[in-house]
Order: sequence, then structure tokens, then C-alpha cells
Amino acid sequence: MRRNETLLELLLELQTLDRVPRMGYVLRGVPDPESISEHSWHVVFLAWALAARIDEVDPGRAMEIALIHDLAEVRTGDLPMVAKRYFVDGAKEDAESSVVDELAGPLAGRAGDLLAEYRAAETPEARLVKACDKLQLMLKVAVYERWGARGLTEFWDNPDNFRDYGFPVVRELYEELCAARAEWLK
Amino acid sequence: MRRNETLLELLLELQTLDRVPRMGYVLRGVPDPESISEHSWHVVFLAWALAARIDEVDPGRAMEIALIHDLAEVRTGDLPMVAKRYFVDGAKEDAESSVVDELAGPLAGRAGDLLAEYRAAETPEARLVKACDKLQLMLKVAVYERWGARGLTEFWDNPDNFRDYGFPVVRELYEELCAARAEWLK
Amino acid sequence: MRRNETLLELLLELQTLDRVPRMGYVLRGVPDPESISEHSWHVVFLAWALAARIDEVDPGRAMEIALIHDLAEVRTGDLPMVAKRYFVDGAKEDAESSVVDELAGPLAGRAGDLLAEYRAAETPEARLVKACDKLQLMLKVAVYERWGARGLTEFWDNPDNFRDYGFPVVRELYEELCAARAEWLK
Amino acid sequence: MRRNETLLELLLELQTLDRVPRMGYVLRGVPDPESISEHSWHVVFLAWALAARIDEVDPGRAMEIALIHDLAEVRTGDLPMVAKRYFVDGAKEDAESSVVDELAGPLAGRAGDLLAEYRAAETPEARLVKACDKLQLMLKVAVYERWGARGLTEFWDNPDNFRDYGFPVVRELYEELCAARAEWLK
Amino acid sequence: MRRNETLLELLLELQTLDRVPRMGYVLRGVPDPESISEHSWHVVFLAWALAARIDEVDPGRAMEIALIHDLAEVRTGDLPMVAKRYFVDGAKEDAESSVVDELAGPLAGRAGDLLAEYRAAETPEARLVKACDKLQLMLKVAVYERWGARGLTEFWDNPDNFRDYGFPVVRELYEELCAARAEWLK
Amino acid sequence: MRRNETLLELLLELQTLDRVPRMGYVLRGVPDPESISEHSWHVVFLAWALAARIDEVDPGRAMEIALIHDLAEVRTGDLPMVAKRYFVDGAKEDAESSVVDELAGPLAGRAGDLLAEYRAAETPEARLVKACDKLQLMLKVAVYERWGARGLTEFWDNPDNFRDYGFPVVRELYEELCAARAEWLK
Repeated sequence: MRRNETLLELLLELQTLDRVPRMGYVLRGVPDPESISEHSWHVVFLAWALAARIDEVDPGRAMEIALIHDLAEVRTGDLPMVAKRYFVDGAKEDAESSVVDELAGPLAGRAGDLLAEYRAAETPEARLVKACDKLQLMLKVAVYERWGARGLTEFWDNPDNFRDYGFPVVRELYEELCAARAEWLK
Repeated sequence: MRRNETLLELLLELQTLDRVPRMGYVLRGVPDPESISEHSWHVVFLAWALAARIDEVDPGRAMEIALIHDLAEVRTGDLPMVAKRYFVDGAKEDAESSVVDELAGPLAGRAGDLLAEYRAAETPEARLVKACDKLQLMLKVAVYERWGARGLTEFWDNPDNFRDYGFPVVRELYEELCAARAEWLK
Repeated sequence: MRRNETLLELLLELQTLDRVPRMGYVLRGVPDPESISEHSWHVVFLAWALAARIDEVDPGRAMEIALIHDLAEVRTGDLPMVAKRYFVDGAKEDAESSVVDELAGPLAGRAGDLLAEYRAAETPEARLVKACDKLQLMLKVAVYERWGARGLTEFWDNPDNFRDYGFPVVRELYEELCAARAEWLK
Repeated sequence: MRRNETLLELLLELQTLDRVPRMGYVLRGVPDPESISEHSWHVVFLAWALAARIDEVDPGRAMEIALIHDLAEVRTGDLPMVAKRYFVDGAKEDAESSVVDELAGPLAGRAGDLLAEYRAAETPEARLVKACDKLQLMLKVAVYERWGARGLTEFWDNPDNFRDYGFPVVRELYEELCAARAEWLK
Repeated sequence: MRRNETLLELLLELQTLDRVPRMGYVLRGVPDPESISEHSWHVVFLAWALAARIDEVDPGRAMEIALIHDLAEVRTGDLPMVAKRYFVDGAKEDAESSVVDELAGPLAGRAGDLLAEYRAAETPEARLVKACDKLQLMLKVAVYERWGARGLTEFWDNPDNFRDYGFPVVRELYEELCAARAEWLK
Repeated sequence: MRRNETLLELLLELQTLDRVPRMGYVLRGVPDPESISEHSWHVVFLAWALAARIDEVDPGRAMEIALIHDLAEVRTGDLPMVAKRYFVDGAKEDAESSVVDELAGPLAGRAGDLLAEYRAAETPEARLVKACDKLQLMLKVAVYERWGARGLTEFWDNPDNFRDYGFPVVRELYEELCAARAEWLK
């Protein structure tokens, strides 16, 4: 499990992404929590759904960025949010770039470029996927709460989870979500 | 849980797709089997990876088709393959079309068109996603076998799981996969 | 996995029923939800317990009907309630009859007759099992709620889940259950 | 959770039987192992299926005994087979009788009588259920092995798991099962 | 799986302790409940943490007692608390002593002595571990409740779960825990 | 979840360690894989069992080191072995030291010293725990293989998993384990 030379090696290794759990949920006792490939599908879906409402965004490109934005976690696992404060700045990002370089085989170049674009968060597509990454988090948190989870309130208090990256359509969805949740909590 | 009127309603309901297991694995005793959203992510990934190698395929369109090809299962569950012989022809397809119409809210039109294109299997993009749907199945089966599953041999005996839909790149991947499996089985 | 010729083939295939989850719970986030064989055991138990209180019911016959009422789901899976509106009337019933005919081997005749009797819901035994099928649903829902599930309220709002099929003893149990739940909710 | 006074209390407590795992499988690493209510459903099914082939057995009575034969485990859990050598003879049986007496509420008398009949193993119905209890064990073991479990071989070496209690139809099923397994192992 | 003769046999069998669930949680619907080895680690940790605050306690000895206090459950499973009233006094203790004698191989003498000391609850170390066994229970119950479990209230009503065994530091921790829980429940 | 000020805060947070899975098993498809607290209990047990056979080792001190050696993973998760090559040397160790400092509250000093001793691997107790950490890995791998896992062979090929740190008793256990496995594989 080092450098993949062929597409087949990459494809086989990626099947494992289903077993990498989102650690934020694990550490708060959510049973059978979302995997990285589940999260990634939802982010692709959100990018597709919202791109159609935003003129400046190329939907295909946004979907590509969403598709690969967490690819490296098949080798690093999902570092819990709290863990980030214990690593030097950029350590996680550097590690992920190195993973993608070794992991992605014949796709390493394209995947690496998309990951770099995602991190820079300058293109409209990258900004949209950044927004979708958090929006999907809060959608899932809301659903887990409706199912019975009680340990997730701190997510609602973290402003980092509510950035719209300049897209009014994202802002509106957050507002609708918060309003819906306020209704359920009554 | 009937007709979704808003994008938010759709997005919340789709989170549930993570809990819909792929029944073929369930019925053969695979522990913690792949969900529909996991399967769907892998099919999007395959479509993206292979589209770049096939001139006639528009990668963005192939990804869109892959993204939504199993959307209806959030309301129908995943009907096991064996079940299909007990329903009249087209019953499953008609049901899925009706689901997408009620489920997808403001995206119902686009999603319905993509689903119809997928079923017709005439455009290069639809044919590619059909191929990826089966190719991903066999990749996952191979991985489960490497992990210890023994009840999956009948998948290898079913020629329906090895159709290349006219794409040599798909054919080659199947051949590499079968060769790799033969190696592991030694 | 087509037509079982021997009792042994049937018995081996039925072991799989433990892995078929009740989809109503799955889609509402219940962790480790009830399987079809678990549900079926509880319905047999209820039929046995209540038959003793109802003169017109033959307990052994009621138990037989309860035992086989969901047998076909080992091949179809458990179609979620919401899915039924997307299939033509009778499609599910026809499919299940065909399954039982192929599945049950030397027992196909007896099992098919019991299933037909269950569906007709005319004999006292069939009506009782129909009632027990729903009563067990609401007992399990109540228990899941006591354990922490929050996503199950719509079950309490559906009058179809509270039909007594003419048996006062069923009516009384529903009333006691609702009273007990009202107490817990305080 | 002491003496149940009403049928409702009993029915609610019994829902918990789904969470009591069969310890023999747990201790040998079977993932998602059978629960007591799953096991019990299969034993009822076997009793029903075989009773029709044995003149001297009353099917309804055999089903009743099968239905309740492990009822007490909702309070004691499933004591692993190996554990029994560490308790004085009869300790487990006495405990189970006391449980049923307190657990079964208005059904305590009937359930207690059936349990006593099961233990005495003198009536044809009790002997048949004793046989079905072991036969179902070996059917499930065979299925788990087909799915990939490797830690279950000692079950096949234990003659206690192959007693026919004088019923040729049981003996034949064991022989067919062992022959089928020998075929798979090739 | 009878008398272990070597250390290796013991070590291999003990790996299984991870699969033995704490039945009190199982029977109250806690998803993915604590295993005996998890519980045991937490009790060792508590013993280590508190021993440093109590002059009369030898930390190493307290850790040893905590380490082995539930060792026998690898063969008996975790008998639910409610089950104990159905066995004669001392039956569980006698069984556990016999298990440790056969299980622990070359360590049987040391483990047996530590278990006897634990049961007698006379030395400061044994009393401390008795206290930690219950304190850990209530810490875990509190955490499960914060995560969403609702079926655990009866633990808070049982005075046996709040004995300090004469250690003020234990008493203080209980008081802090109850105060913290009262805060969360608001 | 930042700096714990009290022992109670630490104790509550540590309960979460049960949910942190050992990623090496996760990524190789082991169902219900060992948690960090389970692993840690086994390492404490090994340290206790082996310390009695090695004159120069203080058993209590070895147990303390084993107890806390993976404490930080409650905040970082378990970084898969393969991930380490993507981080700069010492990044993981520095992060863990910072975690323990913030996590361990009033025990931060003691826990930090023990962790530093473990890493330096100079004292006999630290070397023994290093050895036990790997020995327990291979014991668990062997057990998972007996249960049916097939994806773990690469562990046996990695010489890092078989270092005896100068203790003949560790070397002997490895040899016995490999001999036993060779026997099972026949």
C-alpha cells in the first residue's frame, strides 16, 4: 500500500474509503456514523444542485473538486477537528498532498491539481465546494439530531460551520435549515 | 415524506441514503455492507476516471448520470437482484421514476431526464455509467473477498456483471481485475 | 438461489432472514434495527398470547400464519411502507406469492395457502395476525423511543397502525400502550 | 424490571430479546451474530416444518414449546455453553424457571408448564424441539461458514450437536447438511 | 477451550473479551455498548488516578485488582444485574473462581488471589476497585445519556451505584458528576 | 473539549476512547474492530503478565506506561500506520504530547512523564511496553485470522511487528505464536 502504479490499484484501494468514519460523529457517540465516501457523495450532490443556481460556477468542475476533496483520508483516516490544533499549520495539508501523489496512480496529476484548487479557495468552484463541505455537515447533524443524537449541539455554535463563501444560495439554505431545526426543537 | 417542495427537504431526505444497504451483500452475509451513497460515490469516481480515457464521453454529463442513478432507493430500498424476477417487467423502473418525480423537488426535471437517459443506455455517457455500475460491483466483491467473505462466488459466474458496453477501457479493467483475483486465490 | 427442491435448501436460505432489516426503522435512523425474523418471532408470540383470550381463534393456526407472513422478504427485502405507493396495486403481493412458491420447496403448498389466508383477512386467525403485525410495530416503536429514538413520531399519527380488526383485546392493548407512552413523555 | 403484572409489561420487555446475542457466536468472532429472538423464530419454523412429517407430534404444541424455550434469556442473557461447567447442575434451569415466573405475567403458568415439558424431554413435542434447537444451531453454523467464518469448526466435533432424539427425519437432515458442507469445503 | 496450559493460550483467549458486551447497556438499547475489556481499562485508569490521592492505597496493587476483576467473563459472559436474583448466593462467584483457575494458566494463582482479595473487599486496594467499578458505570451512563440514550434513568435511582467505600475522593467525584448531569438536563 | 481543568472532565472525555477504532484493522475490513481502550487493556495485561518474568522490570511502573501509552488518541484518533510516512518526523509525537498536556487535567504531569519515558524507550519498563504494544497487535491479528479475516497477511511480513526489545520472554512468545499460526494454516 504505497505508490499505486495502475488505475486498478487505485480503484481497489478506494473501496476502503467506506470504512473510514467521520471522526466528529464517532467522538460524539453517533451510532453507525457517516463514512468519508458517503460524505463525499453528498458534497458532490450539493455541488451539482447548487451549481445550477450560480452563473459563475462550472458544474462539472465543481463536481470534480467535490469528488476528490477528501480522497487522501483513505490513507490518513479522518483527523478529528480538535486534533488540528495539535499539528503545525499545514502539516495535514502537506500530508494529504503527498498521499494523493502516491495514491492516485495515473490520476495523480489531475487529482493533485483539483486538491490544490480546493485548498486555495479562489475559484468559484472551489469556494462552492468549501461551502458545500460545511453545509453537508450541518444537514447531517440536523438529521442525526432528529433521529435522537444529543451530543452535537456544539456544531451549531461554531461560526466556521456557517460560512457562505459569498454565495447567497448557500446563505439561504443555512437560514432555512436553522429555521427548520428551531421548529423541530419546540 | 411525500412530495418534496423545497431543495432543503430533498437534501435532508437524501442523508438517509447512507442507511440503505446494498442487498446483494446483506443477503450473502457481508458485515457492514456498502450503502447506496457509498456505491454511488464510487460509480461517480469511476465515471470521472474513465471518461478522461474515452473521447466520445462528456465527463461532466457522465458524472451527473452516475450521481443520480440510484437516487430513488432512498424511498424504495435496494431491491435484491433475485427479487426482480418476481415483479413484472418495468415495475421497478416505473416505481423509480415516480419516486424521483416526488422526491427531487425543484430538481425533479433534471434528475428525471438523467434517469431516463441512464435507462435508455443509448448515449455514450449512459452506457459508460451502466458499465461503471457493474464494474464497481465487481471491484467491491473482490475487496470483500480479500477481507474474508466467502459467499460471493456466484457474482463471478454471472456474465451480466462483465458487460463492457463497447468500451475497451472497461474490458481491460475487467481483465486486470480477474487476473489479480486469480493471483490472490492461489 | 432460485427454486428450492429440498427442505434443507429452504432452511439454509431462511437463515438469511436475520439480515433483512425492517426498512421503516432503517430509514428513520434506528441503530441495529429489528430484522424480519425478529419481527416474525414477536408476531408469533403475540398471536399465541392473544389467541388464548379469543374464543373463535385456533391458536395453532394463528401461530402458523404469523410464522410465515413475511417469509418472502428473504428474497425481496422489506419494501419500505412509502415505497408501496410507487408500485401498482397487488405488485408486492403477487411478487411475494411467486417467491413463496419458489422458495418454500416441499412446504410451498402449505405456506402459500397460509399466505393467501393472511391476505384475505377473513378468518379470525388471519385477522388476528394482521392486528398483531401492527401491534408489534407499535410496541417496538415505543421501546425504541424509550431507548432514545426521536424520529418515529409519524408512526403514532397513522391510523392504519391502530386497527383492532374487531378484537377488543387488541383495542385494550393499544389503549394501555398509548397511556403508558403518554406517561413516559411527561 | 421485576415481576410483570400485565401482558403489556411482558410484551414491552420481550422486545429486548432482539438485543441478546447468542454467545457461542460472539465468542468466536461472528460479526452481527444471531439474536435469541432470531434463533427462536428459526426453531419455531423447524418445529412446524418437521411436525408435519411426524405422526406422533402435535404441531401446535411443538410450536408453543419452541416459542418459549429461551424466553428467560431476556433477563439472564445467553450463558455460553462453556460457562455451564462452572455452575452447579440445575442452577441455570432453576434460574430460568424463576425468571419465567416473574417475567411472563398473566402467561406465567402456561409458559412455565411448557418450559418444564421442554426440560423433561419426554413428550414427542419436547423431544422434537430439543432436536430442532441443535439442528438450527448447525444450520446457522453452516451458513456462517459459507459467509466466511472460520472459527466454528469445534461445533462439528461435538456429538451433542447431532442428537436426533429418535426422529429419523432429523437424522436425515443432519446427514444432508453434513454432505452439503463436505461439498462446499472441497 | 478448557484448561489453558500456556501463557499464549491465555493471551489468545483473552482477546475475545472485546466481544463480551456489558449486558446492562445491551438490555437498555445502547448502540455499540462498552465491552468488558473497555470497562476494565477504564477501571484500571480510575484506580490509578485515585490511588495517587489516597495514602493508604498501593497504586500498583489497585491496578492489578482492577485489571483482573472481570477476567472470568471471557467464559461466562456478563450476567445482567437483574439475573443475579435468580441464582443462589455465591453461584456467580464460585463459577468465576473456577473459570479463573482453568483460564489463567500459569497466572492462575496470582489472578485467583487478586480475585479473592477483590471479593473480600477488605484491603484498601480492593475497596477502591469496588468503588471504581461503580463509579465507572455511572460515568459511562452519563456519557451515553449526553449522546442520546434515554433508557438509563434507573441506574441513577439505585443507591448501590453510589457507594464510596469510605473514600472521600470517590464521594466528591459522585457529587461532581451528579451536579454536572443536573446541569445538562436543564 | 479543550483544556480539562478537573479530573471529572478527563474521566468523562476518556469514555470516548471506546469509540476510537484501531485503523489498521478498519482499513483491512475487520468487522467490529478493536478500540483503543480495548487495545490498551490488553497491553496493560501483557505488561503485568510479563513483568513478573523479568527481574529488572517494576510491574507497577510498566502497567502505568501501558495504561497511558495511547491516551492522546481520544483527541487525534488512531493515525493509520501508512499515514506516518506522510507527516514530518515527530509531528505525531509532538501532537500527542500537546494533547496529553491539555487533556489530562490534574494528571497531566504524571501522564506526560510516562509518555516521554515510553517514547525514549530506555528504561526496562518502557522497552517492555513497546514490545507488548506489538506483541498484542500480532496476538489480535492471529485471532482475527482464526475468525475468518484474510486481509491481514502483510502484518506477518513486517519485521517491526516482531521486535523483542531485548526480552527473551517476548521472543519466545513470538515464536510460539508463529508456530501456532503455522499449525492453524495447515
